[in-house]
Amino acid sequence: MKALYLESIGNLSIRDFQEEMVLGDADLEIEIKRVGICASDVHYYTHGRIGQFIVEKPMVLGHEAAGIVKRVGSSVTDFKVGDRVCMEPGIPDFKSKTALIGKYNLDPTLTFWATPPIHGCMRETVIHPSCLTFKLPDHVSFGEGAMIEPLSIGMQVATMANFKPGDIALVMGCGTIGLMCALSALAGGCAKVMIADLVETKLDIARRFDGLVPVNITKENLEDVVMQHTGGWGADVVMEASGSAKVYPDFVKYCAPAGKFVIAGIPSDPVPIDIAQMLTKEVNLVAINRYCNVYDRAVNLVASGKIDVASMIGKVYDFDDSIEAYEYVAKGGSGEVKVQISLE
Amino acid sequence: MKALYLESIGNLSIRDFQEEMVLGDADLEIEIKRVGICASDVHYYTHGRIGQFIVEKPMVLGHEAAGIVKRVGSSVTDFKVGDRVCMEPGIPDFKSKTALIGKYNLDPTLTFWATPPIHGCMRETVIHPSCLTFKLPDHVSFGEGAMIEPLSIGMQVATMANFKPGDIALVMGCGTIGLMCALSALAGGCAKVMIADLVETKLDIARRFDGLVPVNITKENLEDVVMQHTGGWGADVVMEASGSAKVYPDFVKYCAPAGKFVIAGIPSDPVPIDIAQMLTKEVNLVAINRYCNVYDRAVNLVASGKIDVASMIGKVYDFDDSIEAYEYVAKGGSGEVKVQISLE
Amino acid sequence: MKALYLESIGNLSIRDFQEEMVLGDADLEIEIKRVGICASDVHYYTHGRIGQFIVEKPMVLGHEAAGIVKRVGSSVTDFKVGDRVCMEPGIPDFKSKTALIGKYNLDPTLTFWATPPIHGCMRETVIHPSCLTFKLPDHVSFGEGAMIEPLSIGMQVATMANFKPGDIALVMGCGTIGLMCALSALAGGCAKVMIADLVETKLDIARRFDGLVPVNITKENLEDVVMQHTGGWGADVVMEASGSAKVYPDFVKYCAPAGKFVIAGIPSDPVPIDIAQMLTKEVNLVAINRYCNVYDRAVNLVASGKIDVASMIGKVYDFDDSIEAYEYVAKGGSGEVKVQISLE
Amino acid sequence: MKALYLESIGNLSIRDFQEEMVLGDADLEIEIKRVGICASDVHYYTHGRIGQFIVEKPMVLGHEAAGIVKRVGSSVTDFKVGDRVCMEPGIPDFKSKTALIGKYNLDPTLTFWATPPIHGCMRETVIHPSCLTFKLPDHVSFGEGAMIEPLSIGMQVATMANFKPGDIALVMGCGTIGLMCALSALAGGCAKVMIADLVETKLDIARRFDGLVPVNITKENLEDVVMQHTGGWGADVVMEASGSAKVYPDFVKYCAPAGKFVIAGIPSDPVPIDIAQMLTKEVNLVAINRYCNVYDRAVNLVASGKIDVASMIGKVYDFDDSIEAYEYVAKGGSGEVKVQISLE
Repeated sequence: MKALYLESIGNLSIRDFQEEMVLGDADLEIEIKRVGICASDVHYYTHGRIGQFIVEKPMVLGHEAAGIVKRVGSSVTDFKVGDRVCMEPGIPDFKSKTALIGKYNLDPTLTFWATPPIHGCMRETVIHPSCLTFKLPDHVSFGEGAMIEPLSIGMQVATMANFKPGDIALVMGCGTIGLMCALSALAGGCAKVMIADLVETKLDIARRFDGLVPVNITKENLEDVVMQHTGGWGADVVMEASGSAKVYPDFVKYCAPAGKFVIAGIPSDPVPIDIAQMLTKEVNLVAINRYCNVYDRAVNLVASGKIDVASMIGKVYDFDDSIEAYEYVAKGGSGEVKVQISLE
Repeated sequence: MKALYLESIGNLSIRDFQEEMVLGDADLEIEIKRVGICASDVHYYTHGRIGQFIVEKPMVLGHEAAGIVKRVGSSVTDFKVGDRVCMEPGIPDFKSKTALIGKYNLDPTLTFWATPPIHGCMRETVIHPSCLTFKLPDHVSFGEGAMIEPLSIGMQVATMANFKPGDIALVMGCGTIGLMCALSALAGGCAKVMIADLVETKLDIARRFDGLVPVNITKENLEDVVMQHTGGWGADVVMEASGSAKVYPDFVKYCAPAGKFVIAGIPSDPVPIDIAQMLTKEVNLVAINRYCNVYDRAVNLVASGKIDVASMIGKVYDFDDSIEAYEYVAKGGSGEVKVQISLE
Repeated sequence: MKALYLESIGNLSIRDFQEEMVLGDADLEIEIKRVGICASDVHYYTHGRIGQFIVEKPMVLGHEAAGIVKRVGSSVTDFKVGDRVCMEPGIPDFKSKTALIGKYNLDPTLTFWATPPIHGCMRETVIHPSCLTFKLPDHVSFGEGAMIEPLSIGMQVATMANFKPGDIALVMGCGTIGLMCALSALAGGCAKVMIADLVETKLDIARRFDGLVPVNITKENLEDVVMQHTGGWGADVVMEASGSAKVYPDFVKYCAPAGKFVIAGIPSDPVPIDIAQMLTKEVNLVAINRYCNVYDRAVNLVASGKIDVASMIGKVYDFDDSIEAYEYVAKGGSGEVKVQISLE
Repeated sequence: MKALYLESIGNLSIRDFQEEMVLGDADLEIEIKRVGICASDVHYYTHGRIGQFIVEKPMVLGHEAAGIVKRVGSSVTDFKVGDRVCMEPGIPDFKSKTALIGKYNLDPTLTFWATPPIHGCMRETVIHPSCLTFKLPDHVSFGEGAMIEPLSIGMQVATMANFKPGDIALVMGCGTIGLMCALSALAGGCAKVMIADLVETKLDIARRFDGLVPVNITKENLEDVVMQHTGGWGADVVMEASGSAKVYPDFVKYCAPAGKFVIAGIPSDPVPIDIAQMLTKEVNLVAINRYCNVYDRAVNLVASGKIDVASMIGKVYDFDDSIEAYEYVAKGGSGEVKVQISLE
């Protein structure tokens, strides 16, 4: 079968996937129909590494996928051939202590598609645990199914934010993850979500969604906006999705007393935090690591129409043009939130 | 000033309110503009009592209200004359232990409008603590403002349900409180909310709202419906708003493992609960008592359009016709969710 | 190897265990050194069934065990031959949704030692998943190690009670489970734990422990005692470990506002609950199902001396005398909390 | 009546207190019997300010107090003249939103004894809200009663740590607050609490308490010690009570996956935090601000003997010698945890 390999930095090729694939009792084989291109895929393409994860031998890219069940392991009872599905790409040791306490995302032995040296899903089929595979209702497209992965980051943030119905929240950063946080927060109980960025074109995407309040912080004073929208109380939850160190000196100002600051963005270096200021309001700083037990709930919200991910899908390339697709995204695309590759 | 008095069972009159009204430092005087008629108001009218609360002398009815600030206590800084507001009708001892731990609704000394012997708000003005008064944005009507009170029951249920984003829930009973629970649950994070009743006309109201799934349990098997909508997992949260004892033998069937059963409806007698069955799933039974710290968040959700209460307001009577309004509701109305009285 | 079989009701025999035992990659083989006799073991012996679990063919008894690692599966890195251990007896499907959310005890496919048709641990060795096996420090005896199982019920209750430091609690029932709840609550953060029973000799056991307040409800008014010990506030948490239906009409009286009622005891029939009364205080009813993620923490508390289980071990029989041991317990023993069988 | 005034930096005097004292309906007048000297009192004495709080006119010092009720406000029913009590020194606006949600400690208008310009309690009597006054059982001394205030910081940390029974914790810093955190954690559910410091004499105090594991980080590698005591898992909760910026580069190493880092110590400047490292383990950073709803539970734990504060009281001076007492503490004392002043 064909697969898109990152051979080395800047060097992609489509060629035959020849690794042995064994279908375990509790596994599914899934034909891949749609794969999204993530910033991390592109970063491996352009830099060959992310942090301590280094591409040392050819690796298949891709981890945002949807497809159709092709083969079913012998002990699997809840899936059948032909089911339309999406897949959670990180596989933990299910017997680890982290998994037993319900936090399998924190298992240090977890493997993840397209994180070296693990192959990703830009290939015709994958073998995957059925327990990390989720059915798509008929009216949810494969494109939407492949969006569940980035949405799940936002869902993890929203889940760990532990919103109360009617909260008002703020998201720092209007990139893909910021939007996913904002939409998850809105669907997850917030009455209103402000989303702050420096770039007007990014905020224009937020403008499409009812309930999002875009704030251009080059033009408006964010603290004033937050206080005006919250009657002077502050945001019940601030979600950090920019990865920028510049957020840290000020974030407490935007938080309500006993508020939360939930972090999805990863600054490259340590950031300065004013503990004295945090203590005044007992702000709770919550760090999240990918996602855990949110995939099914993300599918529910897309299926019910409460979260619209379809409108964020931009260009869709055929698998045969996937190298072109990577180059397009590496050059910045045309401002769309997501570019995908179709194997249909 | 005029007030609507319940003189004795079945006997209402509009007459002068002559009690002394003292404006405390932290109080507001508020001109009443709109008051909803609650089933409890009607029950006092028709039965003269609810449980141990007995109408022993003439009492002004009404506790669902919105109005305009007319006078401001000397220490109040966050309200001004002319502010459009709604009011939370229960006043606790703010120094009670229950209040200090954030559960002022559980203070046994709490007084509540139109709960004997406390006068309600069917009168031209009231004096009220500013901390239990909430501003209405300009685009929220007095009618909607007066709906915040019944909505707050649903908000309390939804808040104590502690939804995770994308949960799927079930409400038992499609009366006013059931609808308020369902809409609060949907706005509060659920992907989908089933709502079960025996009466088709009640379910027709639920049909107007996207995301609600009405279930007529005289026609459909509720367990089957729940399992179909949750992939066999069960409802993450079941909310009981019917007050019917018939719900209790079966509710565990509808619940997911580790699910919650949140009770707003009050059965008149003890109900039989199968503890062994509850233990199997570790179902958590949560009882709620009116509301606490949800009014502002209810206003947020109505203001942002996430909860539509306007469409549930039916007939609106002038204050001078309020006796007629009570008779109309006492006879069952015309199927509307809420009848209100206008003092504008 | 020898094993203690329940051949049929009232009929025990010690005979050869001939089932195949396969050591999986992530498994341990453990030599059993000590096994406690549980009321459920005795109930199968005397009645042949518990609820829907019916002994239909000979079954090895026993599920409270400690021993020594004899063999280590190929992928196990954190155990070695000779480690002293105790074992959590219920084995879930680690890939079930209940397991993934951290509630593996709720997996309906969970198998449990000595719950038909699964053989128990009254035999020379067992094969067990290493992730459900827990090391005992050198100073913790095998006898104490075998007590971790009943203690874990109390630990589950105490964990789900979500105590705040300095809470005051009440336990209904001073049998084995009641004591385990009380000691777990005390170690788990309570300042003081009242424990109520009808039987003075049971309360005498509670008297040995600092911080437990035994209450003989045939002599004292329990509500008065609770109110006196809590300054009129009520118990922050009431734990039900009697299994008696008589607890249910009154439990709300003992609870503080926003208090919890945590249920470990299983009444045989549905019990009447006064919902109206529960609502007044927003009492939260928490049902528990065995235990989940508490074994290591139970070992910690025994190892640190915060929970004394050693003093509750009464007669210890040799394995060869285990039928006699069962008869002794079936006849009521001599008032000790626990009888054990030694294989050392 | 006599009072100990801080007249200006380094200048104390005992002189007549002439401010008007009005007994409100819900207030008590309390004769002060014992007052502890806190580092903050001494800091005002030696520096005239703490952060933005500046002593601009003479101020009575002291906020750790116990005494006897002398007079009772007209609406107070739960206290009587002669009751032995301790007092929570911060008074919020009980109608503030922070108070209503159960977090009155976060009310920005809260006044606090001996925080400029509010007079402290080093005087013969005080007027205080009865709801912030707590009865001491007969066997709890005034000295212990005055220790409830510093203990309450530890109790707030332990409460917000949300321990599970049998957790293992680590405290950074073995000063007064560190010890209070460690003892609260131990009483509050931990099996074992490590406490780290650089100073051997401070650790010697920790050595007196069963269950505390002192770690001299000039001699031992803290990460190794933590991993050894937790089987390689990490501390479930790390409490920061040193105020040192040096803790911040490394704290994640000591934390378990999904662990908590609870901060009571206040570093003077912003500290560098490695967010990427925090995300790996989803460490939750919890900031605390004094205390809220813990005084009664602190009294419970001292009364039941679970927390021994008596042994930490060192020299006790007569009120007439209180200037000498302040000088003694300002010079570093003799290594005792607490110096107190008696008015008996």
